[in-house]
Amino acid sequence: MPLPESVLDPSFNIVRLSHVEYSVTDLAASKAFYVDILGLQVTGEEDGRIYLRAMEERGHHCIVLRQAEEASVHVLGFKVWSEDDLDKAKVFFEEQGLATEWVERPHMGRTLRTRDPWGIPLEFYAKMDRLEPIHQKYKLYNGVKPLRIDHFNMFSADVDASVAFYNSMGFRTTEYTEDADSGRIWAAWMHRKGGVHDVAFTNGTGPRLHHTAFWVPTPLNIIDLLDLMATTGYVSNIERGPGRHGISNAFFLYVLDPDGNRIEIYCSDYQTVDPDMEPIKWDLKDPQRQTLWGAAAPRSWFEQGSVFEGAELKESELKAQPIIAP
Amino acid sequence: MPLPESVLDPSFNIVRLSHVEYSVTDLAASKAFYVDILGLQVTGEEDGRIYLRAMEERGHHCIVLRQAEEASVHVLGFKVWSEDDLDKAKVFFEEQGLATEWVERPHMGRTLRTRDPWGIPLEFYAKMDRLEPIHQKYKLYNGVKPLRIDHFNMFSADVDASVAFYNSMGFRTTEYTEDADSGRIWAAWMHRKGGVHDVAFTNGTGPRLHHTAFWVPTPLNIIDLLDLMATTGYVSNIERGPGRHGISNAFFLYVLDPDGNRIEIYCSDYQTVDPDMEPIKWDLKDPQRQTLWGAAAPRSWFEQGSVFEGAELKESELKAQPIIAP
Amino acid sequence: MPLPESVLDPSFNIVRLSHVEYSVTDLAASKAFYVDILGLQVTGEEDGRIYLRAMEERGHHCIVLRQAEEASVHVLGFKVWSEDDLDKAKVFFEEQGLATEWVERPHMGRTLRTRDPWGIPLEFYAKMDRLEPIHQKYKLYNGVKPLRIDHFNMFSADVDASVAFYNSMGFRTTEYTEDADSGRIWAAWMHRKGGVHDVAFTNGTGPRLHHTAFWVPTPLNIIDLLDLMATTGYVSNIERGPGRHGISNAFFLYVLDPDGNRIEIYCSDYQTVDPDMEPIKWDLKDPQRQTLWGAAAPRSWFEQGSVFEGAELKESELKAQPIIAP
Amino acid sequence: MPLPESVLDPSFNIVRLSHVEYSVTDLAASKAFYVDILGLQVTGEEDGRIYLRAMEERGHHCIVLRQAEEASVHVLGFKVWSEDDLDKAKVFFEEQGLATEWVERPHMGRTLRTRDPWGIPLEFYAKMDRLEPIHQKYKLYNGVKPLRIDHFNMFSADVDASVAFYNSMGFRTTEYTEDADSGRIWAAWMHRKGGVHDVAFTNGTGPRLHHTAFWVPTPLNIIDLLDLMATTGYVSNIERGPGRHGISNAFFLYVLDPDGNRIEIYCSDYQTVDPDMEPIKWDLKDPQRQTLWGAAAPRSWFEQGSVFEGAELKESELKAQPIIAP
Repeated sequence: MPLPESVLDPSFNIVRLSHVEYSVTDLAASKAFYVDILGLQVTGEEDGRIYLRAMEERGHHCIVLRQAEEASVHVLGFKVWSEDDLDKAKVFFEEQGLATEWVERPHMGRTLRTRDPWGIPLEFYAKMDRLEPIHQKYKLYNGVKPLRIDHFNMFSADVDASVAFYNSMGFRTTEYTEDADSGRIWAAWMHRKGGVHDVAFTNGTGPRLHHTAFWVPTPLNIIDLLDLMATTGYVSNIERGPGRHGISNAFFLYVLDPDGNRIEIYCSDYQTVDPDMEPIKWDLKDPQRQTLWGAAAPRSWFEQGSVFEGAELKESELKAQPIIAP
Repeated sequence: MPLPESVLDPSFNIVRLSHVEYSVTDLAASKAFYVDILGLQVTGEEDGRIYLRAMEERGHHCIVLRQAEEASVHVLGFKVWSEDDLDKAKVFFEEQGLATEWVERPHMGRTLRTRDPWGIPLEFYAKMDRLEPIHQKYKLYNGVKPLRIDHFNMFSADVDASVAFYNSMGFRTTEYTEDADSGRIWAAWMHRKGGVHDVAFTNGTGPRLHHTAFWVPTPLNIIDLLDLMATTGYVSNIERGPGRHGISNAFFLYVLDPDGNRIEIYCSDYQTVDPDMEPIKWDLKDPQRQTLWGAAAPRSWFEQGSVFEGAELKESELKAQPIIAP
Repeated sequence: MPLPESVLDPSFNIVRLSHVEYSVTDLAASKAFYVDILGLQVTGEEDGRIYLRAMEERGHHCIVLRQAEEASVHVLGFKVWSEDDLDKAKVFFEEQGLATEWVERPHMGRTLRTRDPWGIPLEFYAKMDRLEPIHQKYKLYNGVKPLRIDHFNMFSADVDASVAFYNSMGFRTTEYTEDADSGRIWAAWMHRKGGVHDVAFTNGTGPRLHHTAFWVPTPLNIIDLLDLMATTGYVSNIERGPGRHGISNAFFLYVLDPDGNRIEIYCSDYQTVDPDMEPIKWDLKDPQRQTLWGAAAPRSWFEQGSVFEGAELKESELKAQPIIAP
Repeated sequence: MPLPESVLDPSFNIVRLSHVEYSVTDLAASKAFYVDILGLQVTGEEDGRIYLRAMEERGHHCIVLRQAEEASVHVLGFKVWSEDDLDKAKVFFEEQGLATEWVERPHMGRTLRTRDPWGIPLEFYAKMDRLEPIHQKYKLYNGVKPLRIDHFNMFSADVDASVAFYNSMGFRTTEYTEDADSGRIWAAWMHRKGGVHDVAFTNGTGPRLHHTAFWVPTPLNIIDLLDLMATTGYVSNIERGPGRHGISNAFFLYVLDPDGNRIEIYCSDYQTVDPDMEPIKWDLKDPQRQTLWGAAAPRSWFEQGSVFEGAELKESELKAQPIIAP
């Protein structure tokens, strides 16, 4: 099954991933993690929600934390180019038989709520409150000094189908892993904003959120975070890394928030704005795909994920095995 | 005079700046500089031209060097989204009364050659030979380890007019300097590809090319280049830096090639894909605009530039003075 | 006049430079600078004195600040190997006709106070209060994240004589600048602890303290400090840098404290423990001596210094001129 | 069993570790590894031996490679302060009943060859050929850009005894791991030159060389080496890391040469020149001792080592278990 051609003229224009809202079981603990350790900045604290942004972002929030009985991912947010694109998005989803609604969201303009065919809760908007720049207020930099939210990575029980669907929304594949035996896609990285990915899918019981990623400029940010976490009681929240992925060339670290939501901190992907950028294909059996330097990932990294509120889980039929640390 | 609103729906779609062709007076000396010192990779050497690319680029070239009697800038190249955009570009320029022609360019598909209203030679194309990725061939990394061409900066005798014209091609302003006395724009940074700039204009005798910039991931790349240049006979080719611009937040270094063409190496700008990204305004009298850390730029940096082949120079009427090192 | 041979068997054993006590005119302002900007840790605040240490130091203090009517340098401190060495030091100074006394110093054991032949106030001790390690308490790291005090640099009106005297105390010269015309030493770098210097002397009205230096691991620490100072009201306290000295190969930054005392932050010197380490000679006329990358130092850097309490100033007879920024 | 007090007045003065000579089974393969990958500089190639130095070293060699039938470590070298110290060293070893001889070594002056009580072959010298500095010849920097040899780490079947013996030669313990159950020392780090270690001992079948270490200035050197090795056919030579040791605070990487000799590349230890520097004690059961960030070391790291030519192996009686990756 060859990788589908990228759709270069989607019916509506998604600019980039924008934000995620987590339902968390201990708001204070989550705030401590995201603010004191990761270094995100609080932009609002109201109605049981804490809003956070990274250092170069001018939109009001990239992370929303809200207290809940059970941990889950409430919604993934995407910014579209114009109000007109919102209306076109509504048509797009309804034509697929997917229900939509306009919802009221604090600090955001008109917001379209829907789900992808596997139940991942999505919201689209064109306008969010804009805040003053803080990227040159260096006294505020803290923790890993996160510059911006970068991408969502999701478990999918049918990656071929997920890729086809997000492709139809204009996400272009930059790299992917093929299971040579079945010819099916094991994992794929897809973008809108000109980097390696805004969304990625990897084979597994889905839909679940594998991780949310933040971009930092250098590996030293990541080493600083490791030192900080290791000496402030968060050593067991370090899951994998540091390392360099073969795929995407990213220098990475994976850490877990207090509810077990996985956060990737990474740097050094590349620019992908060319519409004729050729996707890079990796073999599932190539250990350097996972980590260029050869180290295998721990089992938890392949198995644990965050559930989406209201989405039903389904096991993948693709049973190929990645290389797991012994 | 307020900054014009960004044009979000230009008549043709420019993806990014792409390449520059320099006419050089000593091809061997230029090759040594760009290859052995900067670390660009040779992708072709034929018909008196040397083609170069940076480490993460898959297009055939970002710099073309060709032997000539006199040093000049032959043309600035831009990549458009599709062949259709090329035809629309032709219409756009002709409607402005600017001559166009289709030219044959090695390693490139259909290429539209024209000039902007002040005579800057431009070429547009949709397809260029695509090369194998080399960003993970770490043995090849050398010199400053340049990852990609990033932007062109040009002297303009009428920055307000230049901004308006490039704005009509869809370039969106991210930051600009205003001369508070006259209310005119002293300098502006404009982008297509989602960073701070693909093109920038600064007040002065124009049109001339102020510099071509390459992106590197960390300040340490730049420090390595300084050490290398300082100990291989290129110390007098170091013009300004290292420093951090207030504008764009870039960590920068300016060096001169053997013909005096200025090359900027920089890192750490920010993502600008949001269509509602607010331009940041700086006052010409603010010394931190030039260098956040306070050091003034040398006079040469404000006065020297590279002429464009066939373009007539005109002095600017705007005589405000930037802060120059004593 | 050839450089004197290093004295490898001095009569007493100095381990390293240890601390400096500054008399400051605004204790709160000085504390803000050294603690909030530089990131030194407060280890004591008592009797009008603030004690500070850097992140890897286990001795009680490397900087002492005390409120005074006028700014000056109260004393430079050195640690000796043993109590026995203190007694031998007393003999050494008295044999030179220099007065000594035993003084009471908080947090320090027996302390010998004296002056060098030009009046620089010196104190020697073997034991200082030892504190718990904090180098792995990463939450405390702040500002430039200084790891340790590294050296003192002093103006001397007769560098040849200063070198000879400190040489007799066992300081070994690692690099020096010669004024080729007069054959005299313009500046010299001398060490005890195995780096490029514990003390350095440079020609000028003396004795004055040119600067106290702190060691950091990478140039990025220094860039972080520049960004922080530039955006917290300290931009005019940035005097020179960043750059790399030809001499010592140090990547440097010079900043001024609220009283104008110069502090160097630097990284990347080299190990000098070999007794047969050959001093490197530089020519005063070599601009790369000052800055490997070619930039000249500002005039203030050659002219301004901090006076030592109770020392009489004398102009140098050596009038050769270093290269000064125009 | 408490840690013995450091001996501050040994009978002879060792300046630092100096060099190691490896007997290798494929000289060309070893040269490729040490020169093209690690970036050491060839200083001599004669009589079946290749001599190498690191970038800031002025002594003739820190590594000697010589072709042999079987891989082994031929000798570990140390530099002493003076010729007189050589004679005192001879007395020291002979008083312990250990045989000594004067040997001829190319590029070295008088050289005393002996063995420690467990058979580790040692050589001491005061003078080695001195070479021109190359630390500012930046064009030569390559591979991991190693600045200097830093330490030897050895398996010992009786670490308590090894520590006591090297202590009597003046090596001072900076950090150590105690097996709380038996009260015995599991591992110890000991220095002469003012860093965390010139030699270290760890429990296991001994004597064997665990690794030789090189110092680099930043973690980015190490990341560059990983990228280089991973893409030039050396991915399986990467054994452990990158990570930060709790002990010594070193940021580390362990790689294997073509014969399986382990090389550590590391940065960021701290200065230890104070004679009253307190050793830091770690518990064998503390996982952050091995890696501050929590990751366990692979089994090979605890078990594999390089044999010393002519030394007889003995198993350790101390059977406590470190934490090993599952």
